Amino acid sequence: MSSRKSWKNYLDDHHDRDFAELIDFLKIPSVSTSPEHKDDVAAAATWVANRLIAAGVPEVEILQSKGHPNVLAKWHAAPGKSTVLVYGHYDVQPVDPLNLWESDPFNPEIRNGLIYARGVADMKTNLATLIQAVEALAQTGGAPPVNLTFLFEGEEEIGSPNLADVVVAQKDRLGCDVALSADGGMASSEQPALCVGLKGICAVQIDLTTSSTDLHSGSYGAAVPNAIQTLVKLADTFHDEKGKVAVEGFYDSVIELTDAEKAEFAEIPYDAAAFMDEAGVSSVWGEPGYTVTERRWARPTVDFNGIWGGFQGTGTKTVTPAEAHLKITCRLVVDQQPEHIIDLLQAHVDKHCPQGVTAKVVVQETGARPYSLDRSSPTLKTAIEVLEDVYDCKPWIVRSGGSVPITEVFQRELGVETVTIGFGLPGSRVHAPNEWFRASDFDRAREVYAAFFNALGE
Amino acid sequence: MSSRKSWKNYLDDHHDRDFAELIDFLKIPSVSTSPEHKDDVAAAATWVANRLIAAGVPEVEILQSKGHPNVLAKWHAAPGKSTVLVYGHYDVQPVDPLNLWESDPFNPEIRNGLIYARGVADMKTNLATLIQAVEALAQTGGAPPVNLTFLFEGEEEIGSPNLADVVVAQKDRLGCDVALSADGGMASSEQPALCVGLKGICAVQIDLTTSSTDLHSGSYGAAVPNAIQTLVKLADTFHDEKGKVAVEGFYDSVIELTDAEKAEFAEIPYDAAAFMDEAGVSSVWGEPGYTVTERRWARPTVDFNGIWGGFQGTGTKTVTPAEAHLKITCRLVVDQQPEHIIDLLQAHVDKHCPQGVTAKVVVQETGARPYSLDRSSPTLKTAIEVLEDVYDCKPWIVRSGGSVPITEVFQRELGVETVTIGFGLPGSRVHAPNEWFRASDFDRAREVYAAFFNALGE
Repeated sequence: MSSRKSWKNYLDDHHDRDFAELIDFLKIPSVSTSPEHKDDVAAAATWVANRLIAAGVPEVEILQSKGHPNVLAKWHAAPGKSTVLVYGHYDVQPVDPLNLWESDPFNPEIRNGLIYARGVADMKTNLATLIQAVEALAQTGGAPPVNLTFLFEGEEEIGSPNLADVVVAQKDRLGCDVALSADGGMASSEQPALCVGLKGICAVQIDLTTSSTDLHSGSYGAAVPNAIQTLVKLADTFHDEKGKVAVEGFYDSVIELTDAEKAEFAEIPYDAAAFMDEAGVSSVWGEPGYTVTERRWARPTVDFNGIWGGFQGTGTKTVTPAEAHLKITCRLVVDQQPEHIIDLLQAHVDKHCPQGVTAKVVVQETGARPYSLDRSSPTLKTAIEVLEDVYDCKPWIVRSGGSVPITEVFQRELGVETVTIGFGLPGSRVHAPNEWFRASDFDRAREVYAAFFNALGE
Repeated sequence: MSSRKSWKNYLDDHHDRDFAELIDFLKIPSVSTSPEHKDDVAAAATWVANRLIAAGVPEVEILQSKGHPNVLAKWHAAPGKSTVLVYGHYDVQPVDPLNLWESDPFNPEIRNGLIYARGVADMKTNLATLIQAVEALAQTGGAPPVNLTFLFEGEEEIGSPNLADVVVAQKDRLGCDVALSADGGMASSEQPALCVGLKGICAVQIDLTTSSTDLHSGSYGAAVPNAIQTLVKLADTFHDEKGKVAVEGFYDSVIELTDAEKAEFAEIPYDAAAFMDEAGVSSVWGEPGYTVTERRWARPTVDFNGIWGGFQGTGTKTVTPAEAHLKITCRLVVDQQPEHIIDLLQAHVDKHCPQGVTAKVVVQETGARPYSLDRSSPTLKTAIEVLEDVYDCKPWIVRSGGSVPITEVFQRELGVETVTIGFGLPGSRVHAPNEWFRASDFDRAREVYAAFFNALGE
């Protein structure tokens, strides 16, 4: 194992090369959802594989899947030490609306200390810097301080449809003691954060039909059910007047927050004006009896993501529509199971759908279970110590309302917990135009990853 | 004036030519609500003008308006006889959803004795056949038996926004004794019907905004208003649990049906199974306390015609949508005024829109007032006699839930009443996919129009 000083020097010495590499990586338009970028996603996989090889990783393989390829690599040269499974993704979100970008999303530009590029925060910088950190440790210590297995995918931005299958198929090669996900962020450039809870998710679509054909609203509208009106009435039964979910049994398996957890949440500063400004809203909303932070991090929801029916063009069409549709996702918390929640949604629709009307509940995704990291995890403790040391302040212990399905897959299939360390910041416009990453966090990322791997080897 | 035999022979002799003409007319996609069909609506106006000229009409003019053109024509060659103002429209409804059509809506196809095409029942066949009838009368009698003024428009399907202005501007040229609207239908191919009541209409769109941008539902969904959920809740306030309109004041100016009117309605046979089959529904619905016929003919409604918001593609997008939209039309009965009802809708939205959410009410049409024809009208009596003669049974006296704004404008501006004679049938899917017209009614339409004009000249 190398001394902190030696690998820090190595990183400093290679700063310019490493930064130039990142810029190259950002130039690959690896948009996983767009068929026209299929070759670009493959090119990003190749870039990652080559960078691992250049870092000294002895086993590097590009695994083809039903969709985009995965990169699976291993460097097990630390006998007696832990094995760490490192997860990340090299695909990015689409760039539209392109006209809102102030510079080319795939020609990175630095303005006022921020790197602007698609994928710079989510999560190409994390991916490049963690490989660079491994190289620094290996070059200065002869080998990495822990056994490393890398699993990088190209489909995270489309919901990782094939990754769980890959994990099951490669189970033997993925055995490990702990996992690190690099798909995360910090609270600010000065305030590190560690995420210990992710929500689960399930998704359904309701397809409601009132008639075999659209009808003239003058001739029929007064006397037959209207699909939009029926759907609106049905949709309005999912929440009560105050915003609490009204699906029977929905909260039954929710483990309520303890006073200690609520106190922990309350320690994280919440600035209402800043939050509303960031979200572009002029009011907050949600389940009564909980703070905004509690709602976002720890309360389950029934979210309407899409609705459509009847005439949607310019002008007027006096139609009594025959069908209408609603897309719903539920964000789930421990101990809600997606399969069970889908059963409850189905029962709710059966109960509230009026006679003579058909409402099909079509399951859109198998879903993901909620994930929570045990606060007594030694790996979490290590991460806290490393971040406190680098940032010179205690990291916030936070949760996320989002879902990173792989963390739950690692827990279920490999029996390991996942610690998430990444460097995007709130407001860095991931999934939106003008995504940015603070240039000064580039060095911090390399230092944190190197220090974290080193600490795990101690 | 020609004998019945001679004009009937003329119509028989020209059957094939006249039918082919209709097919040509149906091929013009004169969708008035779609800007991309502007030229097609103009082409339909030209078709009508040319057909009038070909029939021998001496004065034919295409009048430009703020919107689509109108055709104004006169054939006043029957001194001492009545002047009849003939109204119709050559525009059609949009065709979406196009995938539900079994044949191209603008390439007419005949299957099992039915002509399938957009506009064939509403109302291009009526328009073509009435001109053909005039030609037959003139060719066999030297001139038409009455003085005829034709006013055909291209904006009926968007609520005739400019026609009232045209009537006012052209008042001098439109002077007449009675009006015939060809925008109507029969009860069946064996059962004629005359409509003595039409509903009024007004149309608005609600544009609801909760945020300046779509948001990630995991990061924000639990704590900010969701545009779809907010719209659903707002939309659900427009009707009570039982289906009665819940907009304050909505029923205040409605003149309740008398016992005599209710008895007249009850005379028209209502076959629940046949009605449900025709509408493709398995239940009826509507305002409590009224029969299906009363609801359709004489009770006002708030109809939802279109809704959309968020993600509508295949699969899942975990978005908290920033905006959602709802299209509403109200069917009005005497003495509801469209302007007043729009004020009530605006007040309703203002009252029920939650704080921090913007809901704009955009008026889509100036609207139309409800219309009713005096039962003692001599023209109505003539129409009854003509229909009884051709169909060999007494016509039903009915009302319609539809709106033909011009009837009320003719009453107000020209002081004349309008008799409506048309040949669409219940279930002919006007405003819906697979609109049809019974091919055998083509001859009947020409005969009735010719006999009616002839009778008015007697």
